[in-house]
Amino acid sequence: MARSSFYLDDIPLQEAKERIQTALERVGRAGILEGEEVGLDEALGRVTAEPVWAARSSPHYHGAAMDGYALRARETQGATDRDPVDLAIGEGARYVDTGEPLPPGSDAVVPIEQVEPVGPTDERGRALERIRLRAGLTPWENVRSMGEDLVATELVVPAGEVLRPVHLGAIAGAGHDRVVVVRRPSVAILPTGSELVDVDAQPEPGQIVEYNSLVLAGQVESWGGSATRLPRVEDYLEAIKKAVRRACENHDLVLVIAGSSAGAEDHTASTVEALGELHFHGVAVRPGHPVIFGTVPASESLPATPVLGVPGFPVSAALTGEIFVEPILAGWLGRPPVELDSLQAEMAQKVHSSMGDDEYLRVIVGEVGERFVASPLRRGAGVISSLVRADGVVVIPAGTQGIEAGEIVDVRLYRSGDSVRRALVAQGSHDLTLDLICQELARRGQRLTSTNVGSLGGLMALRRGHAHLAGCHLIDPATGEYNVAYVRRYLPDQEIVLLGLVGRVQGLVVRPGNPLGLAELADLAGEGVTFVNRQRGAGTRVLLDYQVEEQGISSAEIEGYQREEFTHLTVAAAVASGSADAGLAVQAAAEALGLDFVPLFQERYDLAVPREVYESEKFRPLRQLLDGSSFRESVSKLPGYDVAPMGKLMAIVGGP
Amino acid sequence: MARSSFYLDDIPLQEAKERIQTALERVGRAGILEGEEVGLDEALGRVTAEPVWAARSSPHYHGAAMDGYALRARETQGATDRDPVDLAIGEGARYVDTGEPLPPGSDAVVPIEQVEPVGPTDERGRALERIRLRAGLTPWENVRSMGEDLVATELVVPAGEVLRPVHLGAIAGAGHDRVVVVRRPSVAILPTGSELVDVDAQPEPGQIVEYNSLVLAGQVESWGGSATRLPRVEDYLEAIKKAVRRACENHDLVLVIAGSSAGAEDHTASTVEALGELHFHGVAVRPGHPVIFGTVPASESLPATPVLGVPGFPVSAALTGEIFVEPILAGWLGRPPVELDSLQAEMAQKVHSSMGDDEYLRVIVGEVGERFVASPLRRGAGVISSLVRADGVVVIPAGTQGIEAGEIVDVRLYRSGDSVRRALVAQGSHDLTLDLICQELARRGQRLTSTNVGSLGGLMALRRGHAHLAGCHLIDPATGEYNVAYVRRYLPDQEIVLLGLVGRVQGLVVRPGNPLGLAELADLAGEGVTFVNRQRGAGTRVLLDYQVEEQGISSAEIEGYQREEFTHLTVAAAVASGSADAGLAVQAAAEALGLDFVPLFQERYDLAVPREVYESEKFRPLRQLLDGSSFRESVSKLPGYDVAPMGKLMAIVGGP
Repeated sequence: MARSSFYLDDIPLQEAKERIQTALERVGRAGILEGEEVGLDEALGRVTAEPVWAARSSPHYHGAAMDGYALRARETQGATDRDPVDLAIGEGARYVDTGEPLPPGSDAVVPIEQVEPVGPTDERGRALERIRLRAGLTPWENVRSMGEDLVATELVVPAGEVLRPVHLGAIAGAGHDRVVVVRRPSVAILPTGSELVDVDAQPEPGQIVEYNSLVLAGQVESWGGSATRLPRVEDYLEAIKKAVRRACENHDLVLVIAGSSAGAEDHTASTVEALGELHFHGVAVRPGHPVIFGTVPASESLPATPVLGVPGFPVSAALTGEIFVEPILAGWLGRPPVELDSLQAEMAQKVHSSMGDDEYLRVIVGEVGERFVASPLRRGAGVISSLVRADGVVVIPAGTQGIEAGEIVDVRLYRSGDSVRRALVAQGSHDLTLDLICQELARRGQRLTSTNVGSLGGLMALRRGHAHLAGCHLIDPATGEYNVAYVRRYLPDQEIVLLGLVGRVQGLVVRPGNPLGLAELADLAGEGVTFVNRQRGAGTRVLLDYQVEEQGISSAEIEGYQREEFTHLTVAAAVASGSADAGLAVQAAAEALGLDFVPLFQERYDLAVPREVYESEKFRPLRQLLDGSSFRESVSKLPGYDVAPMGKLMAIVGGP
Repeated sequence: MARSSFYLDDIPLQEAKERIQTALERVGRAGILEGEEVGLDEALGRVTAEPVWAARSSPHYHGAAMDGYALRARETQGATDRDPVDLAIGEGARYVDTGEPLPPGSDAVVPIEQVEPVGPTDERGRALERIRLRAGLTPWENVRSMGEDLVATELVVPAGEVLRPVHLGAIAGAGHDRVVVVRRPSVAILPTGSELVDVDAQPEPGQIVEYNSLVLAGQVESWGGSATRLPRVEDYLEAIKKAVRRACENHDLVLVIAGSSAGAEDHTASTVEALGELHFHGVAVRPGHPVIFGTVPASESLPATPVLGVPGFPVSAALTGEIFVEPILAGWLGRPPVELDSLQAEMAQKVHSSMGDDEYLRVIVGEVGERFVASPLRRGAGVISSLVRADGVVVIPAGTQGIEAGEIVDVRLYRSGDSVRRALVAQGSHDLTLDLICQELARRGQRLTSTNVGSLGGLMALRRGHAHLAGCHLIDPATGEYNVAYVRRYLPDQEIVLLGLVGRVQGLVVRPGNPLGLAELADLAGEGVTFVNRQRGAGTRVLLDYQVEEQGISSAEIEGYQREEFTHLTVAAAVASGSADAGLAVQAAAEALGLDFVPLFQERYDLAVPREVYESEKFRPLRQLLDGSSFRESVSKLPGYDVAPMGKLMAIVGGP
């Protein structure tokens, strides 16, 4: 067994791609798949296997381009106002409708409105005897001549083209009712793991809902392949071997999900080695590095089938699809690989990255002022919400230690550039109404992307020009006033509009029935009470630090004061899971998770918006939303929310 | 009848869109269609009808993020190299694999490789009795805590989102196996016209192959609707009325193709007026202006159904789909309208446009040097090949007379920006090998776009920086040498590489059997011979003008010397159709259309390429193609072609 030499070797991405190519060539599967003829009504989105040459010219005859009289141009020569030319109907001229073929011998059409009928006309005003022309025509005037659009034998569509609706029309116009397209590559998807349960199951702790196969199948279909989701198999080597061998019999590619790490129950590499040849195990790319590639002969008469071991973490699985599966399918289909559109953006934060790996960093992108700004999303391989929220991906190549804040990076976009351009970028404190705003703006065709970096983080983002607005609720210990002092201190050079959003109650989130009987901040310092805190820079943390100080409580005595969560909901989740007894958050977070709430403080939450943004076209839908009554009403139903401040100009701070 | 007030009124586009919106509101069809629940495996590409909120947190439990021992962080406090902490297996520590739930009471995981087992271990190296730690852990270290990805009640996907593969995973991870999506709008497509024949028919002159319904159905499907192609009906008012009324019964939208002009057989407007209400007939947009919109009640109990009359010319039909049908579907689906990505490009030529209309001009786009250049394609409403070849569309708004050469315009792209960026732009003389080059480069993942503007036109395009290369075959009357003198004269400031492509024979294309017995140029001046010429600036025209002069023939005596076609193939098509007796072209064009050929002159066809392009990455695939033997071989099979010059450096002209 050559296992050790491949075992989680983390070869460079480029080498992995080359090994795949070499292996495909060796087993005779590197070329374009065979073609199949389909009717044009089934050809949308398929890839042409051969060039399409015109079998017929289009138009296939000389036709009138106007309603009028077909005639010989030569016979109209010299016609003028003073010296008109008359032509007899039937001999020198014949009426034709647009699209009608030119009668033999004629070579031009005079529009009906440019001649005078001489003598009687029919009910449509067409001359029955003669017409009179007061200007001559040139040959081929007002004629749509044969081949004007396409001449027989011309190239209509090259091979390797993904057929769009207009292609179908052009192919039909060129005389074909069928077209030869490349067969769809068939891809088997095999989830493995004893901990997996189906999507409709209620998972126990330790069980994992299996949805990677759903994502990979969707990817394969959208790239032009045909996906088969096989039943999942448990972590037994023999069961996996049997399932893989079978899948190899009638598929072009087999994806084995999970079992690709180095753990005791990771059987994919052993399976491939036992059945065929392992070409690599481990690629220096993050997330996703324990990727496996091998080739397995299904029988002696068939060429070996490529098998890709896909890591089980959802982000790794989806990126493995993009990085490895898509190019293989593109090669088989004979079309260029899907290349995401890209744009240049300024990185909002410093990002560290491992020297040894190519890292695929998901980012949110927005256009702030004249430039694009990319903000990194959470990087865990398990955080599938980061793929949904991501506008694009930035590749940090191996050999670099990361990206500096302000550095210009290339972002490959998952959305259209226009949709990115239209988005409002919010950074700052988290409030549940932001989710509602996002939903309501989506209804109006606008996107709001929001990153939770805390109230102070939001103001810093405005200062660096990385956001359009920042949610904040920062109490000034000196005055008890909200936000104004902080905006003045951190954004001294900008004119900032403080737009009221909500008043809300902060308090202790506790388990149902408040079993520890917590009633005030001081109770947190008691024996046997575990607290969960918010991160430094969060408005809620500023409030807590201020109140703890005011009330003379020692934060060192509060167990868990150092454990930091980034949102109200994750604080509530910590209480719900039993890992903490209490946390400071808004009432709605407690209610969302069925927890109890001990109200402590009333506070104000504003949106800080630079004046030029506030007055911009882009911001208008949000202003309208906050001014309207329906949104106000739905927020007022949230527990602990006061909508009185909504849409009010609280202050305009700074500026000339 | 209010007919006259609407009759081909050509209202502005914006007003047309507003009338559609108002009419839909009046008949109660302006909102988003109802939702329907589908399984996640059927949801790809559908549009969410409701926001998806997380029903479950993800992860739904605290799990180990590493293989190791779960423990209480507090019990490891103070552990150092000199003062290690021992924990007993089963009491203070328990082994967990990655993903396993944390045992109750534990709050951190120490990776297996960071501890020493004390006493015996099992076969996997796991301690059976005790572990020793030489460093403390902080609470929640190496734990993937509940809700890290998504907290129950959080927004996962807003309403109105087109579901991509990763969305399906996130929705499943949030605890749903089904999702509510908007019902697909159903669209009936009804072609009308007695001249129509099916795609598989052999059309007679005057008959039209009906493929507009194929294009419109493909568009509807790709925009998320469900299309039904109805059998075509002939031009009888009653037949059309019956078919439209029926279609209105069970569709959200009915498209009636053709019959929308003002001709005697144009029944669509009368049909709509007779059955319901006509909201407009004619929009000031080109191509496509005779668009019709009305609403027709299918029965008294049902809301009226919108009916759109789509003009029959193929380009008009496809653009009517883009301009009118897509936004209606977007509104019903509750998603933003498809917005094509756009880029700014410099217009290569002056374009005139009617003041009264919004014109949709199809263009080819390429990146030449540092800028994008847009070249207009042929503008006829019937030229569907222009839609296939187009990289994008430029809207020339009403109220302007056109676009100046060099003006910067916004191009809305049909292809990805990357694919536009990768394309090589050829302008110049037409040769059949350009089609073959295009096809071969497509196989290698590169696009070649080529516009036929004649040899001189190509050199002018190089001069203005509008093309990467120009095909040319310009004989110098003084020396009989090809191309060098012209490059020197027209591109005095550039260093140009003249790269040989082919030698080829020019001669007379004549009907099979050469019925007029033409043998030399002088025969063209004979009585009863009709000639078809090439446009001024074409190399073939330069050659002809030169030879006519040399041989002392009077061009005024050649009938048809003024009739200009733009390619070899259209010259041959004119002879094939009988509209001319002879034209000057290459042998391959004659053979392609089954014509005879009288060889007259041998000439050389080169590619003129600025040196910086010649040495660029982008040009390399073309150089490799011309250097290789397989392409040379396939061109050598074309009649009248000599491949000896292929890939040879004929001259480097100009430069410092």
